Amino acid sequence: MRRALTLAATPGVPLGPNPRVGCVLLGADGAEIAEGFHRGAGTAHAEVAALAEAGDAARGATAVVSLEPCNHTGLTGPCTEALVAAGVRRVVFAQRDPNPVAAGGAEALRAAGIDVEAGVMEPVAKGVNKAWTFAVEHNRPFVTWKFAATLDGRSAAADGTSHWISGTDARRDTHALRAECDVLLVGTGTVLVDDPQLNVRDEVDQPVEHQPLRVVMGEREVPADRRIHQGPGEAQHLATRDPAHALAELYAAGRRHVWLEGGPTLAAAFLRAGLVDEVVAYVAPTFLGAGAPAVGDLGITTITDQLRWHLKRAAVIGTGADATVRLTLTPGGDH
Amino acid sequence: MRRALTLAATPGVPLGPNPRVGCVLLGADGAEIAEGFHRGAGTAHAEVAALAEAGDAARGATAVVSLEPCNHTGLTGPCTEALVAAGVRRVVFAQRDPNPVAAGGAEALRAAGIDVEAGVMEPVAKGVNKAWTFAVEHNRPFVTWKFAATLDGRSAAADGTSHWISGTDARRDTHALRAECDVLLVGTGTVLVDDPQLNVRDEVDQPVEHQPLRVVMGEREVPADRRIHQGPGEAQHLATRDPAHALAELYAAGRRHVWLEGGPTLAAAFLRAGLVDEVVAYVAPTFLGAGAPAVGDLGITTITDQLRWHLKRAAVIGTGADATVRLTLTPGGDH
Ligand SMILES: NC(=O)c1ccc[n+]([C@@H]2O[C@H](COP(=O)([O-])OP(=O)(O)OC[C@H]3O[C@@H](n4cnc5c(N)ncnc54)[C@H](OP(=O)(O)O)[C@@H]3O)[C@@H](O)[C@H]2O)c1
Ligand SMILES: NC(=O)c1ccc[n+]([C@@H]2O[C@H](COP(=O)([O-])OP(=O)(O)OC[C@H]3O[C@@H](n4cnc5c(N)ncnc54)[C@H](OP(=O)(O)O)[C@@H]3O)[C@@H](O)[C@H]2O)c1
Repeated sequence: MRRALTLAATPGVPLGPNPRVGCVLLGADGAEIAEGFHRGAGTAHAEVAALAEAGDAARGATAVVSLEPCNHTGLTGPCTEALVAAGVRRVVFAQRDPNPVAAGGAEALRAAGIDVEAGVMEPVAKGVNKAWTFAVEHNRPFVTWKFAATLDGRSAAADGTSHWISGTDARRDTHALRAECDVLLVGTGTVLVDDPQLNVRDEVDQPVEHQPLRVVMGEREVPADRRIHQGPGEAQHLATRDPAHALAELYAAGRRHVWLEGGPTLAAAFLRAGLVDEVVAYVAPTFLGAGAPAVGDLGITTITDQLRWHLKRAAVIGTGADATVRLTLTPGGDH
Repeated sequence: MRRALTLAATPGVPLGPNPRVGCVLLGADGAEIAEGFHRGAGTAHAEVAALAEAGDAARGATAVVSLEPCNHTGLTGPCTEALVAAGVRRVVFAQRDPNPVAAGGAEALRAAGIDVEAGVMEPVAKGVNKAWTFAVEHNRPFVTWKFAATLDGRSAAADGTSHWISGTDARRDTHALRAECDVLLVGTGTVLVDDPQLNVRDEVDQPVEHQPLRVVMGEREVPADRRIHQGPGEAQHLATRDPAHALAELYAAGRRHVWLEGGPTLAAAFLRAGLVDEVVAYVAPTFLGAGAPAVGDLGITTITDQLRWHLKRAAVIGTGADATVRLTLTPGGDH
């Protein structure tokens, strides 16, 4: 199962609407026969990839899969049928499929006489598909709000400049985390003021090939010459101010993990709507004393109403003068 | 020397204007004969305390001291004379005395025919007396600015309430750090709005016996019924807005380490004057979206002018819902 989970988490796999899945086929003697992983919507599922590699050797084998094999016909046929047809004798899987459409795999396999063991290392498997699992369970994308601020909570100086608050290593860290998402979202304010590229760049600051969708949200027009329209990858303008509506559109389009990069006004709108599921904050050891706040007005006037989150992790990113603190928060008791 | 340094750092020693010092006397065979440490202004110096304990056994001994023995007559006589009179043969010390008035101890000892070794574990010894060393070298107290803020940089909600932003453990941590200082300083604004006790309290929230001096700075009157006037310990009002002037007065009164607790306006004044030597920030995983800023206006309008500090330490204080991040900053490249 460890190997299946490692395969599932193969770096650089395009995410899209599907979960990451890994599969290992074992012979009667317990030795590995073949393996496979899912490379994104429209390509073979992990089980099918492994079965194709194994050929006839799959007969009598044990399939170890990180997710319950699907039982529905999507862009590819059901994996349960493929496993039965290949003569697999036993299936061990980690995460039960939270998707009501694809679920029922275990039952279908048992009905076909296959020995099934469910839930092996399930928490680890859920972690591999954290955003996807959340999205399928809640019918909307998982939302990570990322911001960078000074220690006194400023996201830009009084004149609007904000390059740079956090250190080089923190910015690189952001690109690595952006790459794990399938939407990068900002408000029209950020595009009009900052004109960001809003893409994923590599160590030498070059855009990588596979880019998340860039989305700008807000009612104002976004001029066509803005840098978000430059490739590689696509950009989209959602001319709405309603966070729930925007998330519904993105979910319908197959998006499962939204990386909300601000600005302060849009972030406040998502927080007020209770539509932030994780916060990644880069706090730099600097002071501005004035300038744009990290987050806009939340309608809170007294201390007991503050939004308290749970501190999941604190890490120092970078060293020396470049050091920035990265805090990861999950919803707290108030949520 | 390790033992001498441990003695120097004996917890609960009142600080006042004097450094912490520890001394160990060793016999010809290297075994310990006696030890002593300094308990605060007006009491015996560490060397004298150890010599008193040793009596005649001090003849021919080696004195291991954490600080260069003093060579001047203050409230007590020079330690160099006491060491010579007791017949000590060798003196090993860590930190060279930065105080021009008390220095010259090594020379005086050598002139008296004593074998002297200087600078053993000096960096550790300097750490034991960090604030005192700085103060003596700069002719003003060392200033630590402490604040607690939300992750979006608010030190109070819009209605002025601020109890509590940080967790219980963070507040306890603050009391432990306050106890190491000899002045707790706030502006009149904080006293008039919050009416803090501004004292050091123990685990069961009771004021400890030895309290730092409580100082309020600013031109407005401070009503006599304010809680800072309650004992134990003393309070003082410095009716000035000039940070340098306030520090000069406190230094003249023998104060070496000022713990500046804000509020935002006074902290900004010290930052602008370049009179903050260390920052201890408690950042809570909460958001307010509005309210008093962690620090007032610094006269900075563009990002390249931000005050960049050096991140010395990041620690999580408390667990679960109580967790707060404590950041310790030292002056950065811009200072
Ligand atoms: N440090 C950081 O991490 C970071 C990140 C991003 C931005 N920034 C800084 O933030 C500043 C821009 O601030 P901003 O607040 O204007 O940017 P923003 O939040 O990106 O954009 C705000 C705009 O989004 C639209 N919008 C969409 N949904 C909304 C809703 N539910 N409620 C209200 N407005 C909604 C509104 O414009 P319409 O009229 O078009 O609807 C609104 O004016 C820049 O200075 C930038 O440097 C900093
Ligand atoms: N979260 C925290 O760590 C923390 C800590 C402390 C306070 N607070 C909050 O801060 C708020 C009080 O804010 P504040 O800014 O009024 O408090 P403050 O900084 O304590 O006091 C400001 C006052 O200090 C005087 N002052 C002295 N030296 C000055 C100088 N160089 N420049 C300007 N003024 C000087 C001025 O009053 P005069 O007219 O009398 O000269 C000024 O109005 C409260 O809501 C409190 O809860 C939070």
